[in-house]
Amino acid sequence: MTESQIKSQIVNAVKEVHSKKPLAPSITNTVTIDFVANAQIAVGGSAAMVYLPDEGDFIAEAGSAVYINAGTMLPVYEQTLPRTAKRLFELKKNWVLDPVAIGIGSLRTKLLAGFKDYPPSIVRGNASEVIALAKLWEVDGSVSSNGPKGVDSVDSVKDAENAAKALAKYIYEKRGGAGGAVAVSGVEDLVTDGETVVYSKGGSHFMEKITGSGCSLGGVCAVYAGVTSPFIAALTATQIYNLAGKRAEARVNAPASFQTAFLDELYLASAEDAADNPFEVK
Amino acid sequence: MTESQIKSQIVNAVKEVHSKKPLAPSITNTVTIDFVANAQIAVGGSAAMVYLPDEGDFIAEAGSAVYINAGTMLPVYEQTLPRTAKRLFELKKNWVLDPVAIGIGSLRTKLLAGFKDYPPSIVRGNASEVIALAKLWEVDGSVSSNGPKGVDSVDSVKDAENAAKALAKYIYEKRGGAGGAVAVSGVEDLVTDGETVVYSKGGSHFMEKITGSGCSLGGVCAVYAGVTSPFIAALTATQIYNLAGKRAEARVNAPASFQTAFLDELYLASAEDAADNPFEVK
Amino acid sequence: MTESQIKSQIVNAVKEVHSKKPLAPSITNTVTIDFVANAQIAVGGSAAMVYLPDEGDFIAEAGSAVYINAGTMLPVYEQTLPRTAKRLFELKKNWVLDPVAIGIGSLRTKLLAGFKDYPPSIVRGNASEVIALAKLWEVDGSVSSNGPKGVDSVDSVKDAENAAKALAKYIYEKRGGAGGAVAVSGVEDLVTDGETVVYSKGGSHFMEKITGSGCSLGGVCAVYAGVTSPFIAALTATQIYNLAGKRAEARVNAPASFQTAFLDELYLASAEDAADNPFEVK
Repeated sequence: MTESQIKSQIVNAVKEVHSKKPLAPSITNTVTIDFVANAQIAVGGSAAMVYLPDEGDFIAEAGSAVYINAGTMLPVYEQTLPRTAKRLFELKKNWVLDPVAIGIGSLRTKLLAGFKDYPPSIVRGNASEVIALAKLWEVDGSVSSNGPKGVDSVDSVKDAENAAKALAKYIYEKRGGAGGAVAVSGVEDLVTDGETVVYSKGGSHFMEKITGSGCSLGGVCAVYAGVTSPFIAALTATQIYNLAGKRAEARVNAPASFQTAFLDELYLASAEDAADNPFEVK
Repeated sequence: MTESQIKSQIVNAVKEVHSKKPLAPSITNTVTIDFVANAQIAVGGSAAMVYLPDEGDFIAEAGSAVYINAGTMLPVYEQTLPRTAKRLFELKKNWVLDPVAIGIGSLRTKLLAGFKDYPPSIVRGNASEVIALAKLWEVDGSVSSNGPKGVDSVDSVKDAENAAKALAKYIYEKRGGAGGAVAVSGVEDLVTDGETVVYSKGGSHFMEKITGSGCSLGGVCAVYAGVTSPFIAALTATQIYNLAGKRAEARVNAPASFQTAFLDELYLASAEDAADNPFEVK
Repeated sequence: MTESQIKSQIVNAVKEVHSKKPLAPSITNTVTIDFVANAQIAVGGSAAMVYLPDEGDFIAEAGSAVYINAGTMLPVYEQTLPRTAKRLFELKKNWVLDPVAIGIGSLRTKLLAGFKDYPPSIVRGNASEVIALAKLWEVDGSVSSNGPKGVDSVDSVKDAENAAKALAKYIYEKRGGAGGAVAVSGVEDLVTDGETVVYSKGGSHFMEKITGSGCSLGGVCAVYAGVTSPFIAALTATQIYNLAGKRAEARVNAPASFQTAFLDELYLASAEDAADNPFEVK
């Protein structure tokens, strides 16, 4: 795809979300759950959060796309997460995985490992998380990492490029060529479908000074994945985040004000604004 | 009741809450739980949130009134919710039910159906939720609905008027004439005790652009239900929400700023402000 | 310690957190969980929240210090909390306990009582909570209290001074002389290591008009406990809270704006600002 083709598809994605208000339900952590919902609504989507196994079936069927975030594990997730992921896979429906805190605890590891058999269409994480997931799924034996530090990355986005491409290729093949994408958040954000690699620019250093900027980006990826391909969805979400982050930072001097301004800018951003945010196709 | 009698009772309710700081504990969803607490505190009440069965007993006994919101189901709710509702019913204590996401999942349906035997004094929901609850309780066979879409309404408030009245009448009879009310949120908000129907005006289109405006309204209904009748409690909460929403909207251009301004205006609103917000008695 | 020695240690604590970004994971209530995380990040720490038993082991080992807040109980806490506290005790690692809602429900009482055998290095609570914990642990038979009202205190900070000192002494002895501290929040805030008693001044009346000001203070105590002694950690957290509260109040007229401004001021406060906030050594 050329840069101008990409821009055109971003414009379409933002506009379709504004007109269709796609429902993008989540199974997500309890820390940033309201931020996820508010970000999804701010860009024009609709949110609903569930925990129980048969509610997972429901959202797989009713959602335009679904978001699963592994940030906080509850015992019932042992049933809910595999069942929901399987159902989404069978329905060939787009879903987004954020493997937050990968490596912490046996249940999270088991569930994240299990997703290899019915993978998401989009993986969204920081560099260390994406590398760790590629290792867990054994899709790229050559990646090296310092491992996540709790929920924070200790690797750079560039370090995760090979892991991200390998994951996206694995997803593409496993899902029968229906497309797949990986988004890696950092100073510049990488989005790849396994072939094309795009670096999206902007954002703000305040993104790391609030909890949930990554989690909510995953939720917004799911909103766009309800109306477009995994690659364009992940890129559109990343672009609108970088735009809103840059604009919000220009208006504030501290993180809580930033969070408010950031959500406001997500709401105020036009389709063209999102498309015109600087990015580079490698 | 005349309009001026209603206004006088709203003024009293707001003032009593300011002076008594009633404790209105909740069992509520994890998405908007902090918004519920902050809204309850902003109007002058006190908040406490629990999950476990014997904590349900505690809040039934210690609370001035209680709030149960079905937005996110946890496994332990199978024990907690019926036990708490029964205890509240036995104690003849006011409690508010928000049947969020009615229709999603077997546990939620079972628990909401079970509340028919020991009903809340106030039901608060959007039009589709109120219609769905009336159907589930079979209190009005004639209502038709397009069903909720996830957590969003696809019916108008006017569509829910008969269901709301039927529910309120059922509550009134089942609770031995202790009063009952139903509040339906929408462009204009309906509050009824089964006979009188009031439409409260104001609010803001931003209410739908943040998560939890409905949930937190339910929590605020419970605060007022700790000091006055179900009907006046539901109407006072609705009036102060519409006032604060209108005032907040005038100060902002986007939803996150709106949420902050809205909570601020809940805190700043006087008893007379709440009473004088425009409403119409049908 | 003299006032100037205390100030110097506060300056060091704030600076060390800024440079080391200590990970201070939490097991905390679902109401204010994002506020806890955002406050921890605002002062320069790193946050991670968990629920499951083996995740408790992980955070005990990986965290610089840990925060346990009893505000909302989940069934799995019956396994997670004792196991995590024991592991922390064995590792001689600092951890902070906030006994929110002590007295509500049998599980909370059982777990809080059990912590007597492997106590936290810091207890943070309001006056009624601190008195109730001293009673539950039978460390001071002479304290009298009106008991907490839900999650609110009905005792003054001064009323809790003896209980706080007795608790701190018990901790000091039980933890083998590794230090211990108790922080009591109120109009003026008390911090004691069992011998020295300091009253820290400032803050804002809006602290009681938002949910989570106490919970998040506990989380920030844990951040500082990752780099300094329990006493200095509790005092540094209290000082920066009082400073930020006072500064935030000067900028706003209502509680939601206050919360944003308060988190901003936590972020903006320098080490010297925190040390120079008025306090009195008794």
